Amino acid sequence: LDIFIPTDHPHRRYNPLTEQWVLVSPHRAKRPWQGQQEKTSDEEKPNYDPTCYLCPSNKRITGEQNPDYKKPYVFKNDFSALLADTPTPPISDDPLFQASEARGESRVICFSPDHSKTLPLLSENEIYEVIKVWQEQLTELGKKYQWVQIFENKGAAMGCSNPHPHGQIWANSFLPSEVARTDKAQYNYQQKYGSVLLMDYVQRELEKKERIVVETKHWVVVVPYWAVWPFETLLLPKKHIKRLTDLTKEQAKDLAVILKKLTTKYDNLFETSFPYSMGFHAAPFNGQENNHWQLHAHFYPPLLRSATVRKFMVGYEMLGESQRDLTAEQAAERLRNLSGVHYKERS
Amino acid sequence: LDIFIPTDHPHRRYNPLTEQWVLVSPHRAKRPWQGQQEKTSDEEKPNYDPTCYLCPSNKRITGEQNPDYKKPYVFKNDFSALLADTPTPPISDDPLFQASEARGESRVICFSPDHSKTLPLLSENEIYEVIKVWQEQLTELGKKYQWVQIFENKGAAMGCSNPHPHGQIWANSFLPSEVARTDKAQYNYQQKYGSVLLMDYVQRELEKKERIVVETKHWVVVVPYWAVWPFETLLLPKKHIKRLTDLTKEQAKDLAVILKKLTTKYDNLFETSFPYSMGFHAAPFNGQENNHWQLHAHFYPPLLRSATVRKFMVGYEMLGESQRDLTAEQAAERLRNLSGVHYKERS
Ligand SMILES: O=P(O)(O)O[C@H]1O[C@H](CO)[C@@H](O)[C@H](O)[C@H]1O
Ligand SMILES: O=P(O)(O)O[C@H]1O[C@H](CO)[C@@H](O)[C@H](O)[C@H]1O
Repeated sequence: LDIFIPTDHPHRRYNPLTEQWVLVSPHRAKRPWQGQQEKTSDEEKPNYDPTCYLCPSNKRITGEQNPDYKKPYVFKNDFSALLADTPTPPISDDPLFQASEARGESRVICFSPDHSKTLPLLSENEIYEVIKVWQEQLTELGKKYQWVQIFENKGAAMGCSNPHPHGQIWANSFLPSEVARTDKAQYNYQQKYGSVLLMDYVQRELEKKERIVVETKHWVVVVPYWAVWPFETLLLPKKHIKRLTDLTKEQAKDLAVILKKLTTKYDNLFETSFPYSMGFHAAPFNGQENNHWQLHAHFYPPLLRSATVRKFMVGYEMLGESQRDLTAEQAAERLRNLSGVHYKERS
Repeated sequence: LDIFIPTDHPHRRYNPLTEQWVLVSPHRAKRPWQGQQEKTSDEEKPNYDPTCYLCPSNKRITGEQNPDYKKPYVFKNDFSALLADTPTPPISDDPLFQASEARGESRVICFSPDHSKTLPLLSENEIYEVIKVWQEQLTELGKKYQWVQIFENKGAAMGCSNPHPHGQIWANSFLPSEVARTDKAQYNYQQKYGSVLLMDYVQRELEKKERIVVETKHWVVVVPYWAVWPFETLLLPKKHIKRLTDLTKEQAKDLAVILKKLTTKYDNLFETSFPYSMGFHAAPFNGQENNHWQLHAHFYPPLLRSATVRKFMVGYEMLGESQRDLTAEQAAERLRNLSGVHYKERS
């Protein structure tokens, strides 16, 4: 009679990494949409754009000139949100007016010299080159900063202001709030259960097979049980790995494989260059053992129903809690069933 | 030599209501913007739109007909995210797969029969009518649900799909995550300091006068010290008031005054109908004393530099922590100095 059916009945799910709940309202998926339409960006881009400040040999806004780079190229963000050298705010004894020091560095990483590409359109080998540069950056910046956030904002809908394939690297003298939260949650889990939260999780997802999107020898991508964004995914290694810098060459090459597979499926979902923010979370460089940490990457894509209709995290979501219109299992199934060949590369 | 200047130097500020930090990067405000441009919506709207499903006497998508309402009009959301009657998910003993019950109701409140209006273009008396309906809704729904979220998504940029002036009311059988967090923070503060967090805060803001945007006899609006969105504000009563339903008539009428003043300044900032999500946080209907609670409203507006350039909370913000490009004091000063007369109503 009153049997709970997850695809029919509103419920909440718990995110053990952030200790937050998400409201799932699957019955709502059919509501019509009369609101904002996203711009799609499927005009063909040239391989080289003389007006792009990220293309090889071009001048940037600051007047600096990019080298004629052939592989991934890293430079200091011309408008860094963080500075390496900056004074510390005075100490306040008022709990309502607390400021603290924030030092850091912001860098840009061009994934490829080719303006027309995106991650799924690079070869596995080209993606592997990006992974190697991420590793080098972590090694270098991890000596000076306890946190190094590697991320990519892809697409205008995700605030990306330049279509040249690129990501960012922000190093911080502090643990950012989201990271501090997941650090604590993973730590508490290990204290309580004696095991690694995301190791237990990956094992169960591999058994259950309900939320798997794509799998390779060393990696698996799931729509996490507690996903917030419609097609949010979590990329996990199958073994316990604390940081990108701990990967064997084989694991790193296999990471390139799964990144290409996942981003290809994303593009195929609505046959559009799929916008998202993605980034890695991994053991901080804080001198601790960090055995509770498991390397992982989050993909947060905003699109909901088509290339032009996104999910807005507004009103109720900002003031109350995150809310989604389809279940994680439904999203995983759709992504899983998509072709592994990019729609632009089909003959 | 190395004196800390908040408008020059990156730093972090602490939000005692959510126990999260925000990264402030004021030196970054001058970075050029080549990304997405928001649509502005400054075409004149008619007073009545025959195609609008919120206008009086019109048919909604479900086929139901709106009455010929003259005052604020409330109806059940045709695509409710919550249902009053829904089964409870089975109990799981796995800490990584936790689901829980979510019952509730979602309602829409049309602020005015006039399609062309927005809050700042309503008279104080018309806004007072809206406040009275909010109070009635709280009284009714508060008997059945522990949380009643009153909010408004304004503008296409904030996921609003219909320009008719309206807000929403979502009642929940649970305390949503954001609310649970601020409930706990206010409770802990009272345990530790013996006073009400937001009462202490409002007193200090009234003394400091650095972040005040607008003030009336009973209310004050500040850009909170820990604001995340560029022109985020916090609306606070000067006295200890737990809920909207506890207002005297004078306080309620004065609330209409300050809501009109604040939203007028918002529209005047970039001479556009200013998008935002706003909503009230107040003592839950959970049968507790809730002396640690102080009624307040949050305004979260996305625009940063103009009617078309918004702040994106993406990549670093999603994975790391919220980040802003101007200080709360700079934002407050700009809003404070704006005219109290709406740019559309100037002769
Ligand atoms: O209910 P609406 O106005 O159709 O929808 C809007 O507000 C809701 C509550 O904040 C959000 O869940 C939706 O993403 C947003 O588009
Ligand atoms: O650095 P960009 O690409 O100019 O800017 C983009 O990413 C940043 C980091 O997530 C955000 O702070 C900005 O709001 C966004 O527009």
